[in-house]
Amino acid sequence: MTHVICTVDMVLLTLHEGGLKVALLKRDREPFKGVAALPGGFIHIEEDTDVRAAALRVLTEKTGIDVPYLEQLATFSGPARDPRGWSVSIAHYALVSFDVIDRAAHPDVKLLSVDRPISLPFDHRLILETAVSRLRSKSQYSSLPCYLVGETFTLPQLQRVYEILMGELINKVSFRRKIAEMDMLEVIEGQFESAGAHRPAQLYRLKAHFKQQLQLLERGL
Amino acid sequence: MTHVICTVDMVLLTLHEGGLKVALLKRDREPFKGVAALPGGFIHIEEDTDVRAAALRVLTEKTGIDVPYLEQLATFSGPARDPRGWSVSIAHYALVSFDVIDRAAHPDVKLLSVDRPISLPFDHRLILETAVSRLRSKSQYSSLPCYLVGETFTLPQLQRVYEILMGELINKVSFRRKIAEMDMLEVIEGQFESAGAHRPAQLYRLKAHFKQQLQLLERGL
Repeated sequence: MTHVICTVDMVLLTLHEGGLKVALLKRDREPFKGVAALPGGFIHIEEDTDVRAAALRVLTEKTGIDVPYLEQLATFSGPARDPRGWSVSIAHYALVSFDVIDRAAHPDVKLLSVDRPISLPFDHRLILETAVSRLRSKSQYSSLPCYLVGETFTLPQLQRVYEILMGELINKVSFRRKIAEMDMLEVIEGQFESAGAHRPAQLYRLKAHFKQQLQLLERGL
Repeated sequence: MTHVICTVDMVLLTLHEGGLKVALLKRDREPFKGVAALPGGFIHIEEDTDVRAAALRVLTEKTGIDVPYLEQLATFSGPARDPRGWSVSIAHYALVSFDVIDRAAHPDVKLLSVDRPISLPFDHRLILETAVSRLRSKSQYSSLPCYLVGETFTLPQLQRVYEILMGELINKVSFRRKIAEMDMLEVIEGQFESAGAHRPAQLYRLKAHFKQQLQLLERGL
């Protein structure tokens, strides 16, 4: 039995210029050398404690980007997705504010709008679409969008992030009720952001224990 | 670089005697020969088209059980979970009515109540608990429980299945409203089941196109 090629791939998402973007890395080796793809690589069994550790290591080594939060997406597999042979990619995804990618300033990392139908090598288009649809469904009831909005934010800014992810406008009253119910934000006392003609808006941040753990809103049947 | 051991494991769940059970198979080889474990095996790159096909093949070959529906659960990995070396298990789960397991009548397949804290080989306890918690969260808004109830059923029978999965009693009116909203059942004209002193209850079945595709109820923010 010839062995299965076992890799990890990372879908790193951010908001930039009002849209949802994915970070692509120009490949430095064959196959698809020079082509922009999701950052990915082999599991190193001497150093990685599990596939999550492998995904974090690969991302940091190849792009200089550290992420606080990362979630397993799904496994993609088969004989045809990689020209090197029967392969499994254990795909993960993470959300970061644009600052995090900007600070790393890797010359071969580019942002692509997730809605632009550009083809990607391997089955990376499918992996990307799976991540975006997972995110859009989770953003309806999770703390995930808060990873995209930056360290501090106003409620209108946060609402705008949810709207971009969900692709539709949200009623302000029901948005605020839901956010209150999830109990994941804290007021930054005495800090406001002025916004043009409006009165200054209160600044918030994510409560510390939500920074590395996903908050899901339980819903009864 | 030594290669990663790549396997699939199956969490096959059913309802029997009023409780949620998992199908375990006595292992016919080392490691853990003779011990009951989740059915699993290696990917065969000559015949499997992807990991889902591998999981279906392994289940049928080893237990004689065919499942109509199967979902990827998560990937479990690391150097310690399998004594043979650094391994990845791509775990899947499926729900079937008890008939399906009973018909296969495999002598080495046993049912274990998921809530009995019996230790299992490898990290199969963790895999099982992950599947049960996924199921219990999904059962709040999906068609998954309908795979457990048998071909035809009354609404009180279906409600009882949801209650067992969720571990709590459900209000009848809101249950029926939710089920109607999901629009996944069809009336079997003229067929009723009598239930003791009550008047006969209408029989239903899952609409054909839900039999192999999961119905998730969309929820607005």
